[in-house]
Order: sequence, then C-alpha cells, then structure tokens
Amino acid sequence: MLLYPGMTALDVVGPQALLAGLSAGNLHLVAKVAGAVESDTGVSLLATISLAECPRDLDVLFVPGGDGTPAQMRDAQVIAFLRDRAERAAWIASVCTGSLILGAAGLLDGYRATSHWCVRDRVLPILGAEPVAERVVFDRNRVTAAGVSAGLDLGLALAARLCGSDYARTGQLVAEYAPRPPFRSGTPEEAGPEITRAARAILDRLAADSLTAALALRPR
Amino acid sequence: MLLYPGMTALDVVGPQALLAGLSAGNLHLVAKVAGAVESDTGVSLLATISLAECPRDLDVLFVPGGDGTPAQMRDAQVIAFLRDRAERAAWIASVCTGSLILGAAGLLDGYRATSHWCVRDRVLPILGAEPVAERVVFDRNRVTAAGVSAGLDLGLALAARLCGSDYARTGQLVAEYAPRPPFRSGTPEEAGPEITRAARAILDRLAADSLTAALALRPR
Repeated sequence: MLLYPGMTALDVVGPQALLAGLSAGNLHLVAKVAGAVESDTGVSLLATISLAECPRDLDVLFVPGGDGTPAQMRDAQVIAFLRDRAERAAWIASVCTGSLILGAAGLLDGYRATSHWCVRDRVLPILGAEPVAERVVFDRNRVTAAGVSAGLDLGLALAARLCGSDYARTGQLVAEYAPRPPFRSGTPEEAGPEITRAARAILDRLAADSLTAALALRPR
Repeated sequence: MLLYPGMTALDVVGPQALLAGLSAGNLHLVAKVAGAVESDTGVSLLATISLAECPRDLDVLFVPGGDGTPAQMRDAQVIAFLRDRAERAAWIASVCTGSLILGAAGLLDGYRATSHWCVRDRVLPILGAEPVAERVVFDRNRVTAAGVSAGLDLGLALAARLCGSDYARTGQLVAEYAPRPPFRSGTPEEAGPEITRAARAILDRLAADSLTAALALRPR
C-alpha cells in the first residue's frame, strides 16, 4: 500500500483492516522514505519501508487517494515505481482519487474504472479510462473504488477474490460491517443540490488540480 | 482521541475522517508517549501528544477498541487520565471495545451503551452499563458505537450533534459514505452460525481477556 503526504488515511486503513489478516507480516506500507507520512486530515501513518525496499513481486499494489493526489500524478519517482511493480502485481487496486495516480502511470488505459465522484467523469477519461459510476469496479486485474469510505467495500470484494467469500464474510463480521449511516447523503443524488454545493466547495481545489495534472499528461 | 498499543486503527481513523474538519489543529491523538503507536492490524498511527500534554478541557474524549483493550482496562495511568478528562469533557465517546475501557474507568455506570458484539451483552453489564444492540447509542453525553466500522456511523452522528446535520451530511458526501458491502455478513444474525464460529475463533481471546479484566474490577 502506497503512502504519500496528503493521502486520505481512511482510504488506506479501511482496506488495510480487511486485508491485513490475509498476510500477516507481508502487508507493506510503502513511501518514498520509511517513517511518518501525514494524511490530509492530519493523522500520520507510519510507512514500514521505502519505495526502493518494496518487494518486486506483489500480490496487490494499492494506491489511496486524497488531497495529495495531484502531486503524486506529477511525481516521476512514484510513477516509475507504480509502473514497475504493476508489471508483475497480481492485482492493481485503488480507492478514491488513487485511480487518478494509477491513470497517470498509464495503468488504467483502456480499463473501466471509478474514482471519487468529484473527479470520476471529468478526469478519468483524460487518463484513458472508462468511468463507471459504481462503488467498486473490477476490470481484469484492476479494481478501483469510489471515494474514501468505499475502501471498506473494496477490501471485502478483494479479500473474497484472494481468499474466498467465507474469508471475506468472516472479516466483515469481525469488523461488524453492517453500516447504518444516520443520514442518506453519500452521493450527490442522495445529498441534493445544497449539500453537494457545500461538498464541492471543499473538493474544488482537489478536482481542479487533478484535472490540470491529467491534462498535462495528455500528449504522452 | 486516545491511542494505545493494540488499538484497532479503523476505530480511530473512521471517526477522525469525519470529525477532523470540525476543529483543524485541535484534534489531538493522545498516547502515553507521543510518537508511533502500533495497532492490532500492524499499521502504526502517530500520537501527537502525551497524556500529560493533553488539554484539560475537551469537547470530545474518544476511546477506540482493539485487541489491546484488556491491558488498557487494567492500566491505572490510562484509567486516571480518562476519569480526569471525563469530568470536564462535553462528550465521552467510544467505538468497539473502547466502551469497556470507559466502563473500567466507571464512566458507563448506569448508562445505556454498546460495544463489539463479541463482548457487548456479557461484559458491559459487569461494568455497570446496560447493553443495547444498536449501531450507535446516545445516553446523556455518552455515545458508544458497535464494532470497528461503526465508528463511521458514530462520527456522522456526533458531527451532527456538534455542528448540525448539514455539516454531517456534507462530510458524508465528501467521504462518499453510501456503503454497499458486497456481502450481508456484518452481524452474527446476518452471517449465520458457520461464519460466526469462524469470527469467534479470531475474537475469543479478546472476549475472554476483556471478561477477566471486567470481573477483576467488580468489587471496586
């Protein structure tokens, strides 16, 4: 799992909660430098190894989203790392705007994929992907999830592919994942125009910077 | 938000994702010593301040659950910290087995509360609480959530109390929290006896140690 400054911590920790048990001691949190990496909500996660130390052959290569996404789309070292590990990874996965980083690495060209609603339809096509308005999208060995909390659904779906549905269902019960949000406001359609405007005001900069980063990659 | 060795990272990061925006720079991750604290799935979170450095007057005092719960129930320094801050905190909150730590500090005596399903009905009553099989339980200024992933629902419910439902609904849309678990297996009733047996095998030690820790506190 890639960590980077300005990642969304929940994008990482949601799937990590459901996948860590699959491979005790073999789930690596990878960053440019091992050590603390600050998320876009302020909580820092500890990277266990550096990009250079990351094993060459991975079962899953995972990229989270977050406010730091545009900087990663432009980061030659991160892009080279993702291209290299993706060549041999069994699964290539992302949550939220992490799919834009995969896309910037050319890893979603010709694939159906999803992302956070604030960028999905506008930015994914520029990166060669076909946007799909679903919670978790599988296309061959790519699996991408919608925004932030969709990482829980991706974690379960991926655990089922890796280890069978009984394993995933057991993990779901351990995590007591029987969600009951007190409001119905998780998509623009559910939330309505006023709440969507308020959310866009928070997300506008990320959406605009991601678009700019994607457009700059177009003539590659 | 209290951090401790063997906490469940998702118990912290779920609510943190929804509450961090309320009070930029004033959400403290508190542990015995500032620095990295390893969770029960291996990912470490960085505590920003020590117990001693934690502000005396808190809007919310939050305790996560996890495999490290029984040790915290027995930890005089942690219990004294919680009792002290709880006296003046506007809200006292927990996710998962975090409610057992609150209970061990005497903070749920006479309160309706919930916890992870593996300990809720058996251990909460020993600590003086009335167990309630709901996702998020409010009783006066206590708010407790069910296992692990219920922290997202608690985060939204608490954000609504602190800042109004429009604020919470906006946060829900930013986090795209429109959950769609690929299985229905988040409660023992949904999961059925076979999956519940497999989950209990994983949780048995935590449940037994929590029970032992609670029984040792009884003649206080």
